[in-house]
Amino acid sequence: MIYLDNAATTRPLKKAVADATRAINELYYNPSALYAGGIQTHKEISKAREELISLIADERFELLFASCGTEADNQALFGCVGRGNFVTTEGEHAAVYECAKELKRRGTDVRFASLNRDGSVKVEELLRLVDEHTSLVSVIHVNNETGAVNPIAQIAEKVKKKNARALFMSDGVQAFGKIPVHLSGNIDLYSVSAHKIGALKGTGALYKRKNLNLSPYLFGGGQEGGKRSGTENVFGILAFASAAKQTFSSLKENGARIARYREMFYEKLDKSVFSRISPQEGTPYILTVAARGLRGETLVRMLSDNGVYAGTGSACSSKKPYSRVIEACGVEKELLNGVLRFSFSQETEEREIQEGADIVNRVVKEYYGRMG
Amino acid sequence: MIYLDNAATTRPLKKAVADATRAINELYYNPSALYAGGIQTHKEISKAREELISLIADERFELLFASCGTEADNQALFGCVGRGNFVTTEGEHAAVYECAKELKRRGTDVRFASLNRDGSVKVEELLRLVDEHTSLVSVIHVNNETGAVNPIAQIAEKVKKKNARALFMSDGVQAFGKIPVHLSGNIDLYSVSAHKIGALKGTGALYKRKNLNLSPYLFGGGQEGGKRSGTENVFGILAFASAAKQTFSSLKENGARIARYREMFYEKLDKSVFSRISPQEGTPYILTVAARGLRGETLVRMLSDNGVYAGTGSACSSKKPYSRVIEACGVEKELLNGVLRFSFSQETEEREIQEGADIVNRVVKEYYGRMG
Repeated sequence: MIYLDNAATTRPLKKAVADATRAINELYYNPSALYAGGIQTHKEISKAREELISLIADERFELLFASCGTEADNQALFGCVGRGNFVTTEGEHAAVYECAKELKRRGTDVRFASLNRDGSVKVEELLRLVDEHTSLVSVIHVNNETGAVNPIAQIAEKVKKKNARALFMSDGVQAFGKIPVHLSGNIDLYSVSAHKIGALKGTGALYKRKNLNLSPYLFGGGQEGGKRSGTENVFGILAFASAAKQTFSSLKENGARIARYREMFYEKLDKSVFSRISPQEGTPYILTVAARGLRGETLVRMLSDNGVYAGTGSACSSKKPYSRVIEACGVEKELLNGVLRFSFSQETEEREIQEGADIVNRVVKEYYGRMG
Repeated sequence: MIYLDNAATTRPLKKAVADATRAINELYYNPSALYAGGIQTHKEISKAREELISLIADERFELLFASCGTEADNQALFGCVGRGNFVTTEGEHAAVYECAKELKRRGTDVRFASLNRDGSVKVEELLRLVDEHTSLVSVIHVNNETGAVNPIAQIAEKVKKKNARALFMSDGVQAFGKIPVHLSGNIDLYSVSAHKIGALKGTGALYKRKNLNLSPYLFGGGQEGGKRSGTENVFGILAFASAAKQTFSSLKENGARIARYREMFYEKLDKSVFSRISPQEGTPYILTVAARGLRGETLVRMLSDNGVYAGTGSACSSKKPYSRVIEACGVEKELLNGVLRFSFSQETEEREIQEGADIVNRVVKEYYGRMG
């Protein structure tokens, strides 16, 4: 099976699982416990936390563990949208977009900036939406459907120039471990997910500026500084830190190699069928294309039968006929239904690229044949 | 190391981990994906869900997976406390108690029923607090600090007789897999946790009556019927179902054996030092005692140095000098600081009971010696 849906989730890295397995067999204690095993478990979580902070941030930041990227987004948004308005984009992942819609239902003035053709946000428009009453601005770092990269450090700087009290948040789930990230002082909150970089489902995290006050999200025993109660997912957290260390140690080399693979893959695709949606300068790990007159969902099923796993639209929400985000990019109606997302990981091999593209071309021909 | 803090967390069962490991190596797909691997992963989650429902409930109930018992409690309480008042007990775990305090801060009329000496709720008092404006009643099933069992089916029936529209919720974290449970039609919500029965931290669940409308807790991709978005923790969920099946298959035999161990352990303890707090008829898995004039925290550390891990008060919250719940039981001031909780699992062995009690007696003698 050629797995090209790594933006949905990745196969766990062998080393990350092995590193964390100690937490199942030997370090299974409750990190709040006062005996040696509990204290040791607590220490290992603290070490993982520090390692994760050091990868993209500095001493101005702290990190709260969560159960997934979605929870980190929910915690950030519901925890700090105050009075006034909330400015975000049409290109947000559902984990932010659905929170924005809920905040709107609750009476918050929510403003959505529109997108460029490649899925990046129209920055000037976003900045026009920010005013002295803006309490929070949230801009996705890497668009999970097109791979477009929003220049969040620059956007955050401009937002703060317009309103120094507005908070700036970014969903970094598709950026973390994929493209170089360093959290500047203008970024207040940044959400990440473990299972997108070779760790496990069930763990996410929220980077936050230390002096930012966030409302608690889960109430209870007071874990995570009282902000996120519940016994810590020790195994998931240790696996996350291990996978992140491995991933960041060769981030640049992997990025260059995968960018090469992405272009190799695109070159092989039948251009009489596929239009490219992903920008050249986007994340190397995502190539989104649209097949004129075909249905992405049917293509995904046919590809599955032929040994390739790929995505269509956002993997998190597969109930709509076509993607809200791709539509917001201004992609033509005839292409909207035929969107395919191929996404790669640091473990993707050249052989999978070559064979994968061949299978895609073959399946598309078969599909056209069926349609007569 | 003799591990007697199983009410805080348990060592994962070998079979549960082995059963779930396939989800790491072969079944790592996103359950929302449309290709064969995604569909298969989704099926396995559905199977786990059905298995968990069948263990304690019937077709009137459904189950929402959560990241821990605390999240399940938060989701239940914030998702269904409506207008009017909320009635609960002084014996709730922090995951319910802190939600109740937060609801109070937000303006809800929250009413706390007081406790009997053993930690069970004073039922008549609780019922007096319920009136026609009560929207929710929440009563912990097994008190996590004393092991007292509240007769939730009977309480729920009486609550509904007084107010048929009031919802009834119970935190079942220390009951599930430990004592016989069958959710009656009067119980609307029931929260459980995986890592208390030999599965992994990072997974919990909320049983809910199907025709009960609960507000979404995490907004995003629409997983868990739109109630709890975020990619499912596949590994954790499969481990949970496996551990639960194993646990329930010998629930009665284990319960009888552990009840014998609990009494064996108590018999050996030095009665000139220890007063018993746990009731005879409570869960077999918890024995809480108090040492006159000694500090529980110091005892836990000394026991740790001597090869026994035990708890003091609630393991989830170790910041208070003594336990709010034990205090609410009416335990005398001189005993409050000296609380020790010994808690067992299905894997506890008789040898650990015998040796453990000997070590406890020896350490207590040493402690008194130090005090001169």
